[in-house]
Amino acid sequence: MLRIIFLLSLLFALSNASVQDFCVANLKKAETPAGYPCIRPIHVKAKDFVFSGLGTPGNTTNIINAAVTAGFVAQFPGLNGLGLSTARLDLAPKGVIPMHTHPAASEVLFVLEGSITAGFVSSANSVYVQTLKPGQVMVFPQGLLHFQINAGKSAAAAVVTFNSANPGLQILDFALFANNLPTDLVVGTTFLDPATVKKLKGVLGGTG
Amino acid sequence: MLRIIFLLSLLFALSNASVQDFCVANLKKAETPAGYPCIRPIHVKAKDFVFSGLGTPGNTTNIINAAVTAGFVAQFPGLNGLGLSTARLDLAPKGVIPMHTHPAASEVLFVLEGSITAGFVSSANSVYVQTLKPGQVMVFPQGLLHFQINAGKSAAAAVVTFNSANPGLQILDFALFANNLPTDLVVGTTFLDPATVKKLKGVLGGTG
Amino acid sequence: MLRIIFLLSLLFALSNASVQDFCVANLKKAETPAGYPCIRPIHVKAKDFVFSGLGTPGNTTNIINAAVTAGFVAQFPGLNGLGLSTARLDLAPKGVIPMHTHPAASEVLFVLEGSITAGFVSSANSVYVQTLKPGQVMVFPQGLLHFQINAGKSAAAAVVTFNSANPGLQILDFALFANNLPTDLVVGTTFLDPATVKKLKGVLGGTG
Amino acid sequence: MLRIIFLLSLLFALSNASVQDFCVANLKKAETPAGYPCIRPIHVKAKDFVFSGLGTPGNTTNIINAAVTAGFVAQFPGLNGLGLSTARLDLAPKGVIPMHTHPAASEVLFVLEGSITAGFVSSANSVYVQTLKPGQVMVFPQGLLHFQINAGKSAAAAVVTFNSANPGLQILDFALFANNLPTDLVVGTTFLDPATVKKLKGVLGGTG
Amino acid sequence: MLRIIFLLSLLFALSNASVQDFCVANLKKAETPAGYPCIRPIHVKAKDFVFSGLGTPGNTTNIINAAVTAGFVAQFPGLNGLGLSTARLDLAPKGVIPMHTHPAASEVLFVLEGSITAGFVSSANSVYVQTLKPGQVMVFPQGLLHFQINAGKSAAAAVVTFNSANPGLQILDFALFANNLPTDLVVGTTFLDPATVKKLKGVLGGTG
Amino acid sequence: MLRIIFLLSLLFALSNASVQDFCVANLKKAETPAGYPCIRPIHVKAKDFVFSGLGTPGNTTNIINAAVTAGFVAQFPGLNGLGLSTARLDLAPKGVIPMHTHPAASEVLFVLEGSITAGFVSSANSVYVQTLKPGQVMVFPQGLLHFQINAGKSAAAAVVTFNSANPGLQILDFALFANNLPTDLVVGTTFLDPATVKKLKGVLGGTG
Repeated sequence: MLRIIFLLSLLFALSNASVQDFCVANLKKAETPAGYPCIRPIHVKAKDFVFSGLGTPGNTTNIINAAVTAGFVAQFPGLNGLGLSTARLDLAPKGVIPMHTHPAASEVLFVLEGSITAGFVSSANSVYVQTLKPGQVMVFPQGLLHFQINAGKSAAAAVVTFNSANPGLQILDFALFANNLPTDLVVGTTFLDPATVKKLKGVLGGTG
Repeated sequence: MLRIIFLLSLLFALSNASVQDFCVANLKKAETPAGYPCIRPIHVKAKDFVFSGLGTPGNTTNIINAAVTAGFVAQFPGLNGLGLSTARLDLAPKGVIPMHTHPAASEVLFVLEGSITAGFVSSANSVYVQTLKPGQVMVFPQGLLHFQINAGKSAAAAVVTFNSANPGLQILDFALFANNLPTDLVVGTTFLDPATVKKLKGVLGGTG
Repeated sequence: MLRIIFLLSLLFALSNASVQDFCVANLKKAETPAGYPCIRPIHVKAKDFVFSGLGTPGNTTNIINAAVTAGFVAQFPGLNGLGLSTARLDLAPKGVIPMHTHPAASEVLFVLEGSITAGFVSSANSVYVQTLKPGQVMVFPQGLLHFQINAGKSAAAAVVTFNSANPGLQILDFALFANNLPTDLVVGTTFLDPATVKKLKGVLGGTG
Repeated sequence: MLRIIFLLSLLFALSNASVQDFCVANLKKAETPAGYPCIRPIHVKAKDFVFSGLGTPGNTTNIINAAVTAGFVAQFPGLNGLGLSTARLDLAPKGVIPMHTHPAASEVLFVLEGSITAGFVSSANSVYVQTLKPGQVMVFPQGLLHFQINAGKSAAAAVVTFNSANPGLQILDFALFANNLPTDLVVGTTFLDPATVKKLKGVLGGTG
Repeated sequence: MLRIIFLLSLLFALSNASVQDFCVANLKKAETPAGYPCIRPIHVKAKDFVFSGLGTPGNTTNIINAAVTAGFVAQFPGLNGLGLSTARLDLAPKGVIPMHTHPAASEVLFVLEGSITAGFVSSANSVYVQTLKPGQVMVFPQGLLHFQINAGKSAAAAVVTFNSANPGLQILDFALFANNLPTDLVVGTTFLDPATVKKLKGVLGGTG
Repeated sequence: MLRIIFLLSLLFALSNASVQDFCVANLKKAETPAGYPCIRPIHVKAKDFVFSGLGTPGNTTNIINAAVTAGFVAQFPGLNGLGLSTARLDLAPKGVIPMHTHPAASEVLFVLEGSITAGFVSSANSVYVQTLKPGQVMVFPQGLLHFQINAGKSAAAAVVTFNSANPGLQILDFALFANNLPTDLVVGTTFLDPATVKKLKGVLGGTG
C-alpha cells in the first residue's frame, strides 16, 4: 500500500511536469500564427480526436459535378497544432476538382473508388499527370497548381491529407472570377480577353 | 513570333531561377538529417509521385492477424522532403496492430472498411479510445503509445498518413522482446517478471 | 549633452523596434501550440531565467528507488518559447528510471555522480546500451523508448536537457498499468497475459 | 607572449568547436531537401555573400513590358541555408508581372521608383490591392496568387525579398499555356473555352 | 442561376474550410512564442499589408550620423506570422551603423544609394567585408556581429529584410555602455580598461 | 515456430519501413544546411551516442583563467540532426567566460560546483544578471550577449546544453581584436579609441 502511495505521488509529479502532447483548439479564441489556443486538457475527450464528416459523399449536383469536404482545424479542432488535416473528394462522372493550390501544405491523395486523373505543374513548368486506380497514392508538393478529374464512367472518391492543420485552399477560377477583383486587373495579369473574363465572372458571381 | 521568343527567354530565365519544388530521393546516396539528396529534376517522372503499394491488403496470416504496409520515403522516394508519408493497415477478424509509437510524426487514420477500436495514452496518462466506422478519421499525436484493434467480425482496413516522410515505427513488444536487450534490463525497467519476459522473448525471437 | 539626447532617442526607437527575445510564460493563460502567452517584458526579472529546483536530490524512497525532478515550462516559465528544458535524475542503489519516451524532444544526459547504465531501442529495433561514469554525456533520439539504471553501489545522479520547453514524458508502465485502459485492451495490444496485467494494475493503481 | 599563446590555443579550440554559421552552396553537388551541400569554409570569400545581379534594370522589351531578375540560391549561392532570397522587378510603362505564386515563401516588396499597383487574393477569396509609391513596402503571404502592374506613365522598379533561399515561382499563364498540359485538361480544370486556351497556347508556345 | 447558387454554396463551404493565410497582429493582446494573436479576418484591410515608414530618410543628425528605421511587427502588424520584416538604413557622410547583431534572423541588404562598406565576423573568427554600390545585395548570417559604414562622400541608404517578423537588434555599444550593467562586469568580460568603460558609459548614458 | 517466422517477416518489413531515427555524422563528407550526411545505420554503435570529453576540467592556466570544452557535432558526431549539443565551463578563481553569443541556439547552464555570476543583455537593452549556486539552472535566449564569471574563491564549473548540434560561438573580444578586421573599422563601429583597439589587438594577436 505504501508503495502505491509513493508511486502515485511520483506519477502525480511527473504528469504535472508534462503539460500536454496535444492542443485541442478553442475556436472561440483569437487564432495565433501557430494555431488556436488550447482548451484545458481536463475538458478534452476521446471524441475530440475523431472526425466523422468524411464518411458520406459530398453533394456533387453542381457545376463541377464534384465536392470537397474539408476536415481542417475549423471542422476538426483536435488537429490544432498537430500539423495534419484531411479532406474527402467526390467526383461524379465528368466531375472535376478545378485547378487549385494549397498555400501552406503538401498533400497526399488516396483513391477510394473509381478512376482519377490528377496532375500538378512545377515551378520549372513541367507537367506531372497520372491516372490513378483505387488504392493508389499521389503526392502534390506544397503550393503548386494541381487538379483532379474523374477519369472513368462511375463515381470516384478520394481521401486527401495535408501536413498542416490549416493548409488553405485557393481555387483558381474563384480567385480570378468569383470576387471583386476588377476585370481590367484580371485581364491585365492573365492575358485573357475581357469578354472571357466577364463571362466567367457572370457564371461565378464575380463583380467589377 | 518575336513575342514568343521574348517570352520564352523570360520563361527560361524564370524557370532557371526556381530550382525545384520537390526532391525525389536518391536512395543510393547517404541520407542527411533533412532527408536524401535529390535525383536531378530532369530525371523526375510523373510516376515518381505515385505509390501503388497500398492497393492490395497486406498478408494477415500471422500472429497478430494484421499487416502494416508502409509507404514511407524508403518505399516512395517522391515523398522525400515533402513532410508526408502513408501506410495501410489490414486487420483480419481479431487482428491487432500492437501498442506502438511513431517517434517523428503525428498520424491521421481513415477507416476504409470494417470497424476499428483505436486509442492512445497521453503524457498525462489519460486514455483516449474510440471505436470507428468506415469514413471516420482519428488523429494520434506525435510520439504517444497507440494501437488499433479490429472491433468487428469481418476484415477491417485503414489508410494512415504521417506528417514526416520518415515517421519511424517502434512496436512495443518488438522493442522489449524481439532483440538482444538483456532479460534483466527488460525486467528491471518494466517490472515484468523474468518468466514473462523470457516467454515473450521466446515467442518473438529475442535473445539475452 | 545634445549627443546623448540624440543617441537616447535612437536607442528608444530601436528598442521599441525589437519587441522581445524571450517570452516568459504566463501560466494562467491558455496555452497555444507554440507555448504560453508571454508576460509583459516590463515585468520580467533576472530570476525568471533561473530555476533552483534541481539543486537537491529528489526523494528516492519509493518503488523505483529513483526520482525525476522536472524543470519544464510548467516549473520554469522562463523556458517558454526557447526550445529547451531540463530535469534531474536521482538513482539510489538499485534505482531505475523505467522504460519511457519523450514524445516531443531529444535528450542529452550528463552524469553528475555514480555510475549509470542507460540505453535506448531504435525504430529498426537495435539496442544501444552504455554504462556511464561521471562527466560522460549520452544522447537519446526523440521519441524512442529508453531507460536509466544505477549501475553501481552508491547513489547516482544526472542532469538531462531536452530540446523542447515541454518534452512530454510517457512512462511505459504507467501508460499500460496505471490508468483505466481496460485489461483486455492491454492484453490484446501487448501479448502480456491477463494475470500479469492485473497484477501490475494492482501495484500501480490502474483500473479496468 | 605566453598569454598570447594561451589565448590563441583557446581560440583555436573554440573556433574548431563552432563549425560554421553559413553554408555557401556547392551547386555542382546534388541538392537535399534543406539545400545544397556547403563548400568548405576555407574556400569561402567575402564576395560569396554579395550579389550584383540586381543593380541594372532587366530587359523589358517583351510581351509583358516587364522583367524579373532573380537572386535565388542558383544565382547567389551564399544564400544557401540562410532562409532568404531576393529579386528585382522592372516594369516599363504598361508593364505587368502577371498573376503568379511562390510555393515556398512569403514576400516583401519595396518600391524603388515609379508607381506600382499590387495585389493578392486570399484562400477566403478576398482581394487585397494597393497602389504603392517609392519607399512603400507590401507583404504577400506565402503561396497566394498575386501580381504587380505599373500604375504610372514612367518606368517602375522594385526589390523583393523572400523567406526562403529557393522560393519557387509559378506564373499562372505559363503553368496553363506554356507547356504540354493537354488543352482538354486545361479546359476541364479552368472553365476557359478551348479556343481561348488554344490561342494562348499559341502565343506562349504551349503544345497539346 | 441554379448553377451559380450551387457554386456559391461550394465556395462558401470551401472558404469556411480555409481559415486564413495570414495573421495581422493584434498588438494589444499578449504575444506568444509564435507572434501575436490575429485580428479577425473580416477586419483585415488591404492597407494592413502595406508599410509606409521607410519612404523617407531617417534623421541622421546624431552621434552616428545614421538612422535605422524599423518595419518590424510592432510597426507593421501585417507581417505577424509571415516570417519577414524590413528596415531602412540612412547614412550621412561618415555615418555608421555600429557593430550589432540580430539574434533571431538572417538579413539581406540592398543598397539604394551611395556607397556602403559592410562586414561581418563569423564564429570561426573570419572577417568578411565588402564595399557595395547601389543595387548590390549582401547577406548577413543570423546572429553574427556586423556593421555598415558610409564609404563615400555623399549620403548612402539601404533597405534591409529579415527572415523573422521580429528579428531583434542588439547594438554592441548600447549593450555594453548604455544600461546598468556594472562597470566591473563590463571590464571583467571585455578586457577593456575601466576608464574606457566609464567614458563610454558617460557618453551613452549608462550607469553602474 | 511458424508464428515466429510470420512475426519476424512482419518485423523485417516494418524495420525496413522506418529508415532511421538518428543520423550519426560522417564528418568527412560535405556538410549541408541541416547537418552532415549520416553514416550507415549498420555501422552505428552504442558508443557513438556517448561523449567523454566533458569529464575532466579544461585547462584554466590562461589569460581568462577559464576553459570552454565543447561537445558540438564536430566533437560528438552522434548529435548530428538531433538538435542538441553540450559543453563544459571551468572557471578558476577570477576566471571569466568573456562576453559572447551563440548565433544559432539558446542555452541552459547547470552549475556543477562553485559560484558563478552569469548574465545577458536583451534586445531591449535590459540586463539580467544572477549569481548561481551548484544545482541552479539559468537559461540564455538565442543570440544575445552573455557572460559567466567565477563569483567565489574556489574553482567553479558548469555544464551547458544548446538546442542545436552546432550552436556557434562568437566571443566578442576575439571578433573585435583577434583577427584582421582593420583598426579603423573596429574604431568606427565601436566608438573605442584607436589606442585601446591597438593594445587589445596586440594582446590577442589581431592584425590590421
